[in-house]
Amino acid sequence: MNKLSYAVIGTGAIGGFYGARLAHANHDVHFLLHSDYQYVLDHGLYVDSCDGSFHLPHVHAYQASSDMPKADVILVCLKSVNNHLLPSLLPPLLKDDTLVVLIQNGIGLEEDVALMFPDVQLAAGLAFICSSKVAPGRISHQCYGSINLGNYNCKDPQRFQQVVDDFRAAGIQTGIVEYREARWKKAVWNMPFNGMTVALCTQTDQLLKHPATRQLIREQMLEVVAIARRLGVENVDEAFVEKMIETTDAMTPYSPSMRLDFDFKRPMEIDYLYTRPIAIAHEAGLRVPRLEMLEAELRFIQANY
Amino acid sequence: MNKLSYAVIGTGAIGGFYGARLAHANHDVHFLLHSDYQYVLDHGLYVDSCDGSFHLPHVHAYQASSDMPKADVILVCLKSVNNHLLPSLLPPLLKDDTLVVLIQNGIGLEEDVALMFPDVQLAAGLAFICSSKVAPGRISHQCYGSINLGNYNCKDPQRFQQVVDDFRAAGIQTGIVEYREARWKKAVWNMPFNGMTVALCTQTDQLLKHPATRQLIREQMLEVVAIARRLGVENVDEAFVEKMIETTDAMTPYSPSMRLDFDFKRPMEIDYLYTRPIAIAHEAGLRVPRLEMLEAELRFIQANY
Repeated sequence: MNKLSYAVIGTGAIGGFYGARLAHANHDVHFLLHSDYQYVLDHGLYVDSCDGSFHLPHVHAYQASSDMPKADVILVCLKSVNNHLLPSLLPPLLKDDTLVVLIQNGIGLEEDVALMFPDVQLAAGLAFICSSKVAPGRISHQCYGSINLGNYNCKDPQRFQQVVDDFRAAGIQTGIVEYREARWKKAVWNMPFNGMTVALCTQTDQLLKHPATRQLIREQMLEVVAIARRLGVENVDEAFVEKMIETTDAMTPYSPSMRLDFDFKRPMEIDYLYTRPIAIAHEAGLRVPRLEMLEAELRFIQANY
Repeated sequence: MNKLSYAVIGTGAIGGFYGARLAHANHDVHFLLHSDYQYVLDHGLYVDSCDGSFHLPHVHAYQASSDMPKADVILVCLKSVNNHLLPSLLPPLLKDDTLVVLIQNGIGLEEDVALMFPDVQLAAGLAFICSSKVAPGRISHQCYGSINLGNYNCKDPQRFQQVVDDFRAAGIQTGIVEYREARWKKAVWNMPFNGMTVALCTQTDQLLKHPATRQLIREQMLEVVAIARRLGVENVDEAFVEKMIETTDAMTPYSPSMRLDFDFKRPMEIDYLYTRPIAIAHEAGLRVPRLEMLEAELRFIQANY
């Protein structure tokens, strides 16, 4: 079997980390960069990692996807607010059998990209990682780092499995998960914690420390569970909610990505984290009032940046 | 009919205004003061009012209710967070037929005071006023100023009517309202706007300007309506919700009292504005998720002052 070539679209906290790990394991990885392009071209990528830091002095860096070679696998690691760029970013990279992995937060991402590219194979990547880009070309990976991959419409099981194997060979703990279960399980954590850390300008630990917000987080998680259940998604249940709360109790105080976007006055991923799953709930005849209220608060906050 | 004597407990934005208006109309009014006592004793009360400013050079000012004469009418104008002081504040002022008017925001106030003083006659006062205490002994009355009085358990209709007449003679627009309808109608406005201006650190106009929060305010109002309806309270309905939104649209940008408490890091009236009406909803088998979420946010915010 030939080695797969990778394109990383969005070389930030997520794309920079996973892409660098693959490149560090001698995979052929090509990075699309924006503001960091010249720095990375000159100095490469630095990964300061709890699992062992490393430096890639020479990486394949590009300013435009039209300059990149076609890829067997594309890792889309953009913020989902930029997914409207995909119709121009992806075409130069696509082969007939390219697998596009959307390593992004939210619900409905694959569905929308499938509308843009009906013939392209898609998978979901759910990253469980605390990392951030702390300077041009420098990723700080604080803890965790696993990823779950879920097949959306990839007709080539070998290709999908080979990506999983590549990730694992690069030292990334990689799970294979059922697509919908994976996205909705991630939403159980994402929807309460991303928004509430913004709405109350706080971190995960403080939300769980106060009994009123701890209960609110639980009830918001149960609203996500109610949507998933209504859709017939399995294994997204009350027990999983309790597990997510326990897991978060055990974490160091954490600012989810939306809180970081808020801090830096970047657009927040409200559409795919809230608007879409709430619309799906409504289509299924379900109201999720706490999540709807949180969405309204976030819309207001972003409008008043 | 003898003229009634008045005691004002809490000489702030509300008690200072209504008490001064009564005193200005030559009623016998005695003011309990705390930090402003010496200033008011020396200089009296100033009312800067949109309806005409005035100065009372000499007022009956007291530091302790035990120094005050007994009163025919007591206007309780404390923040409800201080109602635990009433068992020591009220007894020196009570005659057999004293009418205590609670000019306070919230639900369940009369019920709690009735537990403290089972034999005392009570009425509710619902103030519709924009006023604030801007300096010791100085009340700034920006707009509105009407009050609705609702009989809770006053067995003496003449006494209640005489208070209404006194307020009217003092130039205060005064309505007579059914007790429960009055408190719940006030709650329709109070519960969304007080909490949301704190949660989003904003004012009424901004909440109504953004479509997401405008809809949220409406839905929170409808949750209050649902409680009132469940309790069999009349005339608290969808039409009233629309009227409240229209009324608020017509107001100048406004910071409700809870927002001012938040700004000055004073305790917020969460108990009577949220916890009690939500508990009443639960007892009646009704969940009000948006109001519950708002209460949780406020509890968190206050704990992190």
